[in-house]
Amino acid sequence: MSTLEMIEAAALRLQGHVRETPILTSPFLDEIAGRRVLVKPECLQHTGSFKFRGAWSAISGLSEADRKKGVIAYSSGNHAQGVAYAAARHGISAVIIMPSDAPKLKIDNTRALGAEVVLYDRSNESREEIGEAVAAKRGLTLIRPYDEPLVIAGQGTTGLEIARQAAVLGVEQADVLVCCGGGGLTSGIALALEGHAPGLRARPCEPEGFDDVKHSLALGRIQNNAATSGNICDAILTPQPGDITFPILQRLCGPGLSVTEEEAMRAMALAFLRLKIVLEPGGAVSLAAALFRRSEIQGDAVIIVASGGNADPDVFAKAMEFLT
Amino acid sequence: MSTLEMIEAAALRLQGHVRETPILTSPFLDEIAGRRVLVKPECLQHTGSFKFRGAWSAISGLSEADRKKGVIAYSSGNHAQGVAYAAARHGISAVIIMPSDAPKLKIDNTRALGAEVVLYDRSNESREEIGEAVAAKRGLTLIRPYDEPLVIAGQGTTGLEIARQAAVLGVEQADVLVCCGGGGLTSGIALALEGHAPGLRARPCEPEGFDDVKHSLALGRIQNNAATSGNICDAILTPQPGDITFPILQRLCGPGLSVTEEEAMRAMALAFLRLKIVLEPGGAVSLAAALFRRSEIQGDAVIIVASGGNADPDVFAKAMEFLT
Repeated sequence: MSTLEMIEAAALRLQGHVRETPILTSPFLDEIAGRRVLVKPECLQHTGSFKFRGAWSAISGLSEADRKKGVIAYSSGNHAQGVAYAAARHGISAVIIMPSDAPKLKIDNTRALGAEVVLYDRSNESREEIGEAVAAKRGLTLIRPYDEPLVIAGQGTTGLEIARQAAVLGVEQADVLVCCGGGGLTSGIALALEGHAPGLRARPCEPEGFDDVKHSLALGRIQNNAATSGNICDAILTPQPGDITFPILQRLCGPGLSVTEEEAMRAMALAFLRLKIVLEPGGAVSLAAALFRRSEIQGDAVIIVASGGNADPDVFAKAMEFLT
Repeated sequence: MSTLEMIEAAALRLQGHVRETPILTSPFLDEIAGRRVLVKPECLQHTGSFKFRGAWSAISGLSEADRKKGVIAYSSGNHAQGVAYAAARHGISAVIIMPSDAPKLKIDNTRALGAEVVLYDRSNESREEIGEAVAAKRGLTLIRPYDEPLVIAGQGTTGLEIARQAAVLGVEQADVLVCCGGGGLTSGIALALEGHAPGLRARPCEPEGFDDVKHSLALGRIQNNAATSGNICDAILTPQPGDITFPILQRLCGPGLSVTEEEAMRAMALAFLRLKIVLEPGGAVSLAAALFRRSEIQGDAVIIVASGGNADPDVFAKAMEFLT
């Protein structure tokens, strides 16, 4: 279980280590969205995504004895970098299991952030088997990317900040659009808002065709995506909602929203032009939903969690073409 | 005269209207710079640059009778957008005199921010004559871009924030590198630091060949640049330091730094990759100085004011090429 108390406890552990991201606005985005748009740019978080929050929460929440032995994670993306950097700043070792065909830059970054990278061959090795062997031998704790109460609690600190910041800005009723993969960030935010800003309602945003959370919420039970790859929003492609996250989403969230790849890229371009921030496709689906699905949103303000900015330069350049 | 008291008074007028920008960091930038790099991204300010601070300060500092009549500014760039938006949010009219060959996007943006744009022909009309005629007829107050005490006071609020934020981060001694055109931002920050963080020293950063402030400081008197155009850092190309700003810079600043166009573009690329922010060339010269002029900087930390992010998409794409 993840609870509001766990999120508040995580916030205390995160204080001074995690960045409180600001709220950004632009009259040009308000115009397109037809309402006030408040953007929380988690791309400005350490390692370029909200994942650092959950990683810090999980590592700082371990017993000292367990923490000293080190941690392990499977990921080629934002979770890997978040865990690597949070571990390094705790002065402990981290092993990250990455596919050998992952982009060289991501492997180099993860190493440069202080982690030991163990590569595996996607086609004939199992990362779970390799990971379990390494973990057992060295007594490492596995940090799961979303179906883990301490991770959900860390991501939920984003929601505590939103509750405070929205109150200062006079926004009491609004949809809070959250980029959603396995649901760690969305469920954490939903729990924080339930406790501190009950007029704000989290809503998961996903790429079309990978909108398992939207369909699962609509049907009332966990649904799988037909495909597991083949969309530019790589950071948030998960086969299905998590077992821990889904009941939270079901109890607290409004209906899911989904957007096309082109809409995500257009949102990246507008974030460049109007907010001066860098978003990756998976981190821009919430903004895309606010801008291009306005009829599915209620109220005179909408809050956007722009979850990450680790965009490949080529993908970013492609998104910029939508400006011309 | 601009004084610390004027900056503190401006801060009170700006409260709730101007964004307190965060401090961003990256271990990758620390590595290149050879010291801790703390970046204050004023690109995230309203209208994409620090100019909104000075504009708000100047407009809010007018008598109510003067303010009601409206304001006027000459600029095709960041000052235009700052004045236009600050005026609109005060509910007063703004006239911006822009060259008819300014990029259409900038003209459109300035209009969309609520200003009345008066175009002039650069080759055979004087913007001063046109501006003075319009101002006299309608009783408008001219908002100068830097040689204006209320504007300097507004830009100086950036320095108050830096003093507070550096203290929280435990940085008491450091150079504060500031992108410098006419010196409004640099002189305002220098005054604020003198009062609130005397261990922090402002240093102006400019493009090579347009480093009039650096040369003026070195020689002890105002020097002109040989050229007035022909550099990619368009936002900070001014012929010479201001009459009001220069004595402040002379009394309080460390030596100037200058960087090449290529270094400014490399800094833009690294800001994209490591900080997830969009900088324009003129807003990146301070980061470039920290990264590529490390031997000219002292101390184990350096603070960077990244002053603006209104980059043309084509220029940004060119900067991104340095990543490959």
